[in-house]
Amino acid sequence: MPAISQKGRMMPESPIRKLVPYAEAAKKRGVKVYHLNIGQPDIHTPDVALQAIKNFNGKVVEYSHSAGIPSYRVKLANYYQKHQIDITADDIIIGAGASEAILFAFQSIMDPGDEVIIPEPFYANYNGFAINAGVVVKPIVSSIESGFALPPIADFENSIGPRTKAILVCNPNNPTGYLYSEEELETLRQLVLKYDLYLIADEVYREFCYDGNRHASCMHLKGIENNVILIDSVSKRYSACGVRVGCMISKNKELMRTALKFAQARLSPPSFGQIAAEAAIDTPDSYFEEVLHEYHQRRDVVVASINRMKGAFCPTPKGAFYVVAQLPIDDSDRFCQWLLEDFHHDGKTVMLAPASGFYATNGKGKDEVRISYVLNVEDLRQSMLVLEKALEVYPGRTI
Amino acid sequence: MPAISQKGRMMPESPIRKLVPYAEAAKKRGVKVYHLNIGQPDIHTPDVALQAIKNFNGKVVEYSHSAGIPSYRVKLANYYQKHQIDITADDIIIGAGASEAILFAFQSIMDPGDEVIIPEPFYANYNGFAINAGVVVKPIVSSIESGFALPPIADFENSIGPRTKAILVCNPNNPTGYLYSEEELETLRQLVLKYDLYLIADEVYREFCYDGNRHASCMHLKGIENNVILIDSVSKRYSACGVRVGCMISKNKELMRTALKFAQARLSPPSFGQIAAEAAIDTPDSYFEEVLHEYHQRRDVVVASINRMKGAFCPTPKGAFYVVAQLPIDDSDRFCQWLLEDFHHDGKTVMLAPASGFYATNGKGKDEVRISYVLNVEDLRQSMLVLEKALEVYPGRTI
Repeated sequence: MPAISQKGRMMPESPIRKLVPYAEAAKKRGVKVYHLNIGQPDIHTPDVALQAIKNFNGKVVEYSHSAGIPSYRVKLANYYQKHQIDITADDIIIGAGASEAILFAFQSIMDPGDEVIIPEPFYANYNGFAINAGVVVKPIVSSIESGFALPPIADFENSIGPRTKAILVCNPNNPTGYLYSEEELETLRQLVLKYDLYLIADEVYREFCYDGNRHASCMHLKGIENNVILIDSVSKRYSACGVRVGCMISKNKELMRTALKFAQARLSPPSFGQIAAEAAIDTPDSYFEEVLHEYHQRRDVVVASINRMKGAFCPTPKGAFYVVAQLPIDDSDRFCQWLLEDFHHDGKTVMLAPASGFYATNGKGKDEVRISYVLNVEDLRQSMLVLEKALEVYPGRTI
Repeated sequence: MPAISQKGRMMPESPIRKLVPYAEAAKKRGVKVYHLNIGQPDIHTPDVALQAIKNFNGKVVEYSHSAGIPSYRVKLANYYQKHQIDITADDIIIGAGASEAILFAFQSIMDPGDEVIIPEPFYANYNGFAINAGVVVKPIVSSIESGFALPPIADFENSIGPRTKAILVCNPNNPTGYLYSEEELETLRQLVLKYDLYLIADEVYREFCYDGNRHASCMHLKGIENNVILIDSVSKRYSACGVRVGCMISKNKELMRTALKFAQARLSPPSFGQIAAEAAIDTPDSYFEEVLHEYHQRRDVVVASINRMKGAFCPTPKGAFYVVAQLPIDDSDRFCQWLLEDFHHDGKTVMLAPASGFYATNGKGKDEVRISYVLNVEDLRQSMLVLEKALEVYPGRTI
């Protein structure tokens, strides 16, 4: 039997997926499982997007342009213009989700052995993309005490070496919900200028900013236009994860010509998804007002509930729909499995994501979990009650 | 300005895409361009697939399972059972087209520097996938005189070295239309057994076999179940290239566990495309009978027309919807550009794919072009007339 690749052996399994069999077993036992572990929102996809799909009247489902349907890219450029992001359709390559867009970016700017600096905790799949591209992730720890603010500039500079090619940030952040300030982005601007690095900014949660805060984009930064790569997606914005439509955006022409070659090799992004995504741009503002109001409420329920629990701490993030909370537990992997395997409160339990999977540094995140607030307020209240009860009896509690 | 990657610089631009600006310019001059250069069929997507999309009544377009929608994979396994391919849903991972499925396969079995042997001419994007994965393509020449039959076993053995991990064949073949015989597959079976290699078979044109020939699948080969990787797609089968749904199939459990990790990192394949693809399995046999009859007619028109042209030669391929023809020309890249830039007959010209782009060996394919018969019979007749007239006056003609 021929061997599999070293790369394949290195590919991580998602820390959440390991828990899926336990969740399934719990459901079989009749336990209700509140899923706070996923990034799949419960919010409805805008009608205007679904209607566009129903109205499809082509006779052949054709390849689109490798960079995406031209009319979609034009309309998408207008969307960005409205967000003070000054780009044109030519600066956009549509990918099968932000996932593919990140792969295009990694492959276009880094060779095997090159390094990308990412503040941790970070979105676990960045590890997969890095291994896929043969690239080394250099993590820089951000701390829960600061609410997961950008680590000090000195930490970045200590990590920059001859193979460093890029800094990657997710803003607002998955898993922490942290929203980077203009001052923090300015720090990054100076760094990439000084060391001539790429700045990759994953801004798929752009719309989800709370407490009156506005999102500052990497594309607003002056003088580093050729360094900046914006990664985006319609998955979260329109609660349409399954359409698989994201994009890579840059003003760097040589980079975009290169990325297009990777895009051409796989022919085109999904046509139906692009049709839905193009129509979704006409989603009325009222949709976002409602969604933001809803998420805001949910965040407040989760943060307040956790901070009432003995020995637990949760910062109040200003963006996305996640929090990373510190719990009085010995090991978040063990705790999350125990919740599904050995615990229920009135026949209910919760599925959380162990934060260890969001750190590249071994041993980090052992007393932290990520909670996605993708359930309605009432279910969230129930979930928080279940979590509180669980912490009271968890054998590995630390206080 | 930070540099782009070596990999990015190495990525080939499609030989066809280079011609696109010339085609656009020709159209602007009012010249009608017959597109015989592409793999986008004109055949209608089955109604049953389009109807399933119109009937979508979900409220949220959710991620699917990373390996694909479970009900789709079950139904797809049934489809293969009907084609005497004995697999279950667990042996299938759905990808965003065969493109992504090939990347999963390459990444799972090969590390940078490993080698894959491919008979040439071959589908040009294999080069892109190989560079993407850091893998080296070792071409083995097949010749137009034999109709592009499998090269002799000795040629394979001469190319096998310590880094050789796989043999990749496309059957029926793009670009040649060649349909491998059971005897040829038996040769490959013995090779992969002897050297413990993977056999990757791209069978996306399975349905398109002519003259009463039946397709022999790599999955029919006995005793190499752990070596075989089947690559498939619904793009050509149902003329639905834009849905971006393909798959990777193997009985090798360790390989599939590995590939699933790559699939999980990108979350899921496109949901709408999978809905269309699942419904498409119920396409009535009459659809394929009509389509095959149509393609068969078209092939005969093209082959007969070319063989009537002075100094030209075209084998009669038994599959797919392509031919590679030998023309009395100095340089197919120059000829194809000239057709668009400097020639028209009664205001019409043709766009062909220079075969040079389908060879990895430098200098090969200079007097060959690939013709896709994706136009109706009448347009094909017109195109062939235009080609004949062009060959009479082409300044670089060799006879």
